[in-house]
Amino acid sequence: MGVRVGVAGASGYAGGELLRLLAGHPEFDLVTATAHSQAGSAAGAVHPHLSGLDLTLGATTAEAFQDVDLVFLALPHGQSAALAGQLPESVKIVDIGADFRLSDGDAWQRYYGGEHAGTWTYGLPELPGQRERIANSTRVANTGCYAVTTILALAPLIAAGVADPEDVVVVASSGTSGAGKSAKTHLLASEVMGSLSTYKTGRHQHVPEIKQATGATSLSFTPVLAPMPRGILATVTARRATDQDPREVLAAAYATDPFVHVLAEDRWPQTASVSGSNSVHLQATVDADSGRIIAVSASDNLGKGAAGQAVQNANLMFGLPETTGLQIYGVAP
Amino acid sequence: MGVRVGVAGASGYAGGELLRLLAGHPEFDLVTATAHSQAGSAAGAVHPHLSGLDLTLGATTAEAFQDVDLVFLALPHGQSAALAGQLPESVKIVDIGADFRLSDGDAWQRYYGGEHAGTWTYGLPELPGQRERIANSTRVANTGCYAVTTILALAPLIAAGVADPEDVVVVASSGTSGAGKSAKTHLLASEVMGSLSTYKTGRHQHVPEIKQATGATSLSFTPVLAPMPRGILATVTARRATDQDPREVLAAAYATDPFVHVLAEDRWPQTASVSGSNSVHLQATVDADSGRIIAVSASDNLGKGAAGQAVQNANLMFGLPETTGLQIYGVAP
Amino acid sequence: MGVRVGVAGASGYAGGELLRLLAGHPEFDLVTATAHSQAGSAAGAVHPHLSGLDLTLGATTAEAFQDVDLVFLALPHGQSAALAGQLPESVKIVDIGADFRLSDGDAWQRYYGGEHAGTWTYGLPELPGQRERIANSTRVANTGCYAVTTILALAPLIAAGVADPEDVVVVASSGTSGAGKSAKTHLLASEVMGSLSTYKTGRHQHVPEIKQATGATSLSFTPVLAPMPRGILATVTARRATDQDPREVLAAAYATDPFVHVLAEDRWPQTASVSGSNSVHLQATVDADSGRIIAVSASDNLGKGAAGQAVQNANLMFGLPETTGLQIYGVAP
Amino acid sequence: MGVRVGVAGASGYAGGELLRLLAGHPEFDLVTATAHSQAGSAAGAVHPHLSGLDLTLGATTAEAFQDVDLVFLALPHGQSAALAGQLPESVKIVDIGADFRLSDGDAWQRYYGGEHAGTWTYGLPELPGQRERIANSTRVANTGCYAVTTILALAPLIAAGVADPEDVVVVASSGTSGAGKSAKTHLLASEVMGSLSTYKTGRHQHVPEIKQATGATSLSFTPVLAPMPRGILATVTARRATDQDPREVLAAAYATDPFVHVLAEDRWPQTASVSGSNSVHLQATVDADSGRIIAVSASDNLGKGAAGQAVQNANLMFGLPETTGLQIYGVAP
Repeated sequence: MGVRVGVAGASGYAGGELLRLLAGHPEFDLVTATAHSQAGSAAGAVHPHLSGLDLTLGATTAEAFQDVDLVFLALPHGQSAALAGQLPESVKIVDIGADFRLSDGDAWQRYYGGEHAGTWTYGLPELPGQRERIANSTRVANTGCYAVTTILALAPLIAAGVADPEDVVVVASSGTSGAGKSAKTHLLASEVMGSLSTYKTGRHQHVPEIKQATGATSLSFTPVLAPMPRGILATVTARRATDQDPREVLAAAYATDPFVHVLAEDRWPQTASVSGSNSVHLQATVDADSGRIIAVSASDNLGKGAAGQAVQNANLMFGLPETTGLQIYGVAP
Repeated sequence: MGVRVGVAGASGYAGGELLRLLAGHPEFDLVTATAHSQAGSAAGAVHPHLSGLDLTLGATTAEAFQDVDLVFLALPHGQSAALAGQLPESVKIVDIGADFRLSDGDAWQRYYGGEHAGTWTYGLPELPGQRERIANSTRVANTGCYAVTTILALAPLIAAGVADPEDVVVVASSGTSGAGKSAKTHLLASEVMGSLSTYKTGRHQHVPEIKQATGATSLSFTPVLAPMPRGILATVTARRATDQDPREVLAAAYATDPFVHVLAEDRWPQTASVSGSNSVHLQATVDADSGRIIAVSASDNLGKGAAGQAVQNANLMFGLPETTGLQIYGVAP
Repeated sequence: MGVRVGVAGASGYAGGELLRLLAGHPEFDLVTATAHSQAGSAAGAVHPHLSGLDLTLGATTAEAFQDVDLVFLALPHGQSAALAGQLPESVKIVDIGADFRLSDGDAWQRYYGGEHAGTWTYGLPELPGQRERIANSTRVANTGCYAVTTILALAPLIAAGVADPEDVVVVASSGTSGAGKSAKTHLLASEVMGSLSTYKTGRHQHVPEIKQATGATSLSFTPVLAPMPRGILATVTARRATDQDPREVLAAAYATDPFVHVLAEDRWPQTASVSGSNSVHLQATVDADSGRIIAVSASDNLGKGAAGQAVQNANLMFGLPETTGLQIYGVAP
Repeated sequence: MGVRVGVAGASGYAGGELLRLLAGHPEFDLVTATAHSQAGSAAGAVHPHLSGLDLTLGATTAEAFQDVDLVFLALPHGQSAALAGQLPESVKIVDIGADFRLSDGDAWQRYYGGEHAGTWTYGLPELPGQRERIANSTRVANTGCYAVTTILALAPLIAAGVADPEDVVVVASSGTSGAGKSAKTHLLASEVMGSLSTYKTGRHQHVPEIKQATGATSLSFTPVLAPMPRGILATVTARRATDQDPREVLAAAYATDPFVHVLAEDRWPQTASVSGSNSVHLQATVDADSGRIIAVSASDNLGKGAAGQAVQNANLMFGLPETTGLQIYGVAP
């Protein structure tokens, strides 16, 4: 018998991706999934691509999760702590929300507002030593979607000393599912198709998370909304501090990681290549004019940026191969 | 040890999808893949989403497939017969091309031109009795992508007598991957994004295949190129011949099929729901003004329309559960 | 001094397109524009592409339009009559809504519900004799977007006797702006991009309008939502009743119309070609298998399907050349 | 009688946009247009949106332009000089290509290769004093598309001293028409839709042009290919050198320019807003974490980035109002 699994917050896009992944996971048995306003609906009514899945969403209460071994929280920011506090210690939890990512309560206050709930093990297995910490944890905080895409490109460069942490500039574009499933005019297809736009310019909440995980001390981060449903492309630039080849630094850092691929030279990441998968594609070079390092990273915001990484973390927490139930190759074209 | 598998014509979109599916198939071992002009290239250079896959494309020759149990042919129309004729009888073959689909040589001549190569078992397991025929065959001809999408909506309605076969009108829109990976101006992103257009109006080559599989005697078929990479949405209309509810006819026909889902009432198919999967979503109603039956069908042209169905057929030919290595739920949003 | 013009309902997509067209119209002076919940906002805050336009939306009241020569109504269905009734007879009105399109009150009841407001001159100048009727009217009802796209392809074929009016089948796909600017989940970019879906299948409200304008007696009409912001592509099929070439019938019908172009043989309409313009592109052939006529029509749902046609009608009502302030060539690619 | 105008290189996307603009220009009479492999084709066969335009493309020779007052060159890089050298001095020329943009021959060699043809008046009227220089010139070199989008955001900030020219980082995304109309696999709709990708990373040819026009001394520029047909969104960041508000600097710089709009506070540029127009939308802020200036700029790469700006320059060269025949408001949604 497999691990009994529940999903809280199954009606959003990250929740839907979790249901999709869990429906195909050979060791995790999805036994309960809950939602707020959509409680009582069939999974296939909320997520048309799950038509045929025999599952009705329940209400999000602590009682719904008393009988499971593992809970994924895919709740709006600020709502994870209340539910998590009512679950038995024996239930392992992966929180896809932001509540427990930051160690600095002041940074939390500044970027998210409200009271800081605490700090859980940071759920990014590819960071040095982190895979083991996750495996030994019962509470894991998943990364932000922009954060993981940026961190995977930047952390090894700063750790190796080749990138100066004092002047990092990131421009990252995301597909619309990163903005959630709430009906808002500026997210209408009519508004987005054929258009690129910046938003939250100069004040995105993933800034402190990226700094915490990479050691960057100054970070200019600009997010862009792109006309595609999924995917993040991050362009990460930093002053070059040593003569090392940044591509080689990345290749060495991820030589054994199943989900992080440094592309062959002269090939640059494209988001479609990782769509639907848990993989991240990386490439790096040195800018001819400025001498800055340019590292580019592509992810699926619902995969490595949310549900995929959550499953990867849960695999580790239950002693399973970390690729169990996950795709390495994206659905393209 | 698993079934040893080869793919001929691995550089196109159907070939790429086959490689992706085979890389995750638990019983099929991909041992060789070949191409024409791309021979010698790494799979990840031809298909960026397969970066990390340890596979180099060879040249398409009969010798390349001497040592395999199963070959998928994903060659341009008209090239399958020559290669198939050089392979041992003991090698099972699924042809994704059109060469062996039609039983009527005249129809072949009229719609494809050139000499008719012959007729293999028609690879659509959901047709009555066909699952068993495929399981007992060593040579199977996959369906066309428009054809399977239309046939699944239409065949049970004609078989049940509710749809008149004498006046069937189909308008079906396809994503661009159905047009292949050759560089042509009218398939450029600049031309296609934000635009819908008809093509091959009144003379598409899937017409005789649909008539053969459904019993339709008159078929008006108009294909439309749609601004999306994958997916087919077919609107199939026919005069209503009896009072039966067309939705109930479809629901009964596919009650036990794992990949064909008749949606809940009032929910209509959308192509994103089946993207990356082998599933087809169906719905039907009766038109208020004309009284015609309107049945709508959504598929992934590279999934059930090509590579997914090929794997489904191969699963049956090797006595495996037909869902092995295939996805039931699409990647959405 | 030019004609003084007001727009009621300027916050929606048709209203925004009207403002854009009026801002560049050499004879019409936009003096007032009103909205409901957006009253008090700058035009550029509601319609970012109108940034720089010196215009603040007022509240929609009869008083707002006392001092104008021409009013465009771009209100939700059912709201035009109340406002129109309060305007002086001397003010000319073009209603973009559906309220006054139908002559048959029963059809109105059946497809729209509520009380039928009445019947105004039908605002499709390309119909025989209609240009003169519009020029002599002070109240004109614009066409529906699907309706005009279908009617232009179908009306001359039925009038010439080449198309049998008793078995017309239309499948028409529209960009998302046709569904309006209200925030609804199924219209989110995440849901629409990469996806086609049918909706209102078998019961669309443009059916009686198309029948009224073309003489079709049986009409199966299926609308499809397409992943693009603008544009309608209609595939119109009908049984062929005579040997006449349907393309020649269309070419003769529109030989002198500035906005309707029958394309060169073998070239098929694409929606991008008419985007942002008031033009419609047409082509027709005879289906090889069924012998049905297939006529295809492409329009911009906000151009000829709404605001463009409204300006064309107003030009006629004020004795101006009908192309004044309108584009013949679409913005492509 | 108007100015007699010719277009050399009318078959590409910039050429097509020129034809579209010239067809509606009240003072310029398009009398000849030429192409290379498409010579002999009707304009509407090459550019379907120009169906109905009575124009056949001729061959690109000097003879074709002997009888005109104004020639637009929209030729591949490196081909303008040969043709320009054969035209009479009395014929005014606007070159959309790159040949005459740079004053530094070494920079030309390094980024374009081949011999530097020379330096013409730089065709960006919004730069201080440039409008007059253009008006007095007979030879004007249009800007690059990425270049103009970046320069308009950056030049006033450096000129005012608020942006440090020594550490400028730009990430700019372009729609696919910027890559031209040649059929290439990586530009196929299947490859681009739903995907973002970087290219020419660290070595784009617009770098020296941006530095020349802005005074930036170090420029890291990363271009991104975006899934839309038109539009550029540039995120321009620089270290802040003084306390001035960067938004106010931009607003003051463009207070009287008809095509450059600094948006209301808290509203950020989106490319759809300027699509089909000659306008550029700007906004700027100071990044909370790094203190860098972030300025964002949106343009239409075929409008202000190519054909629109060319017409604006030609208007100035012939003493016409610079807005003649151009759109201020984009076609949106």
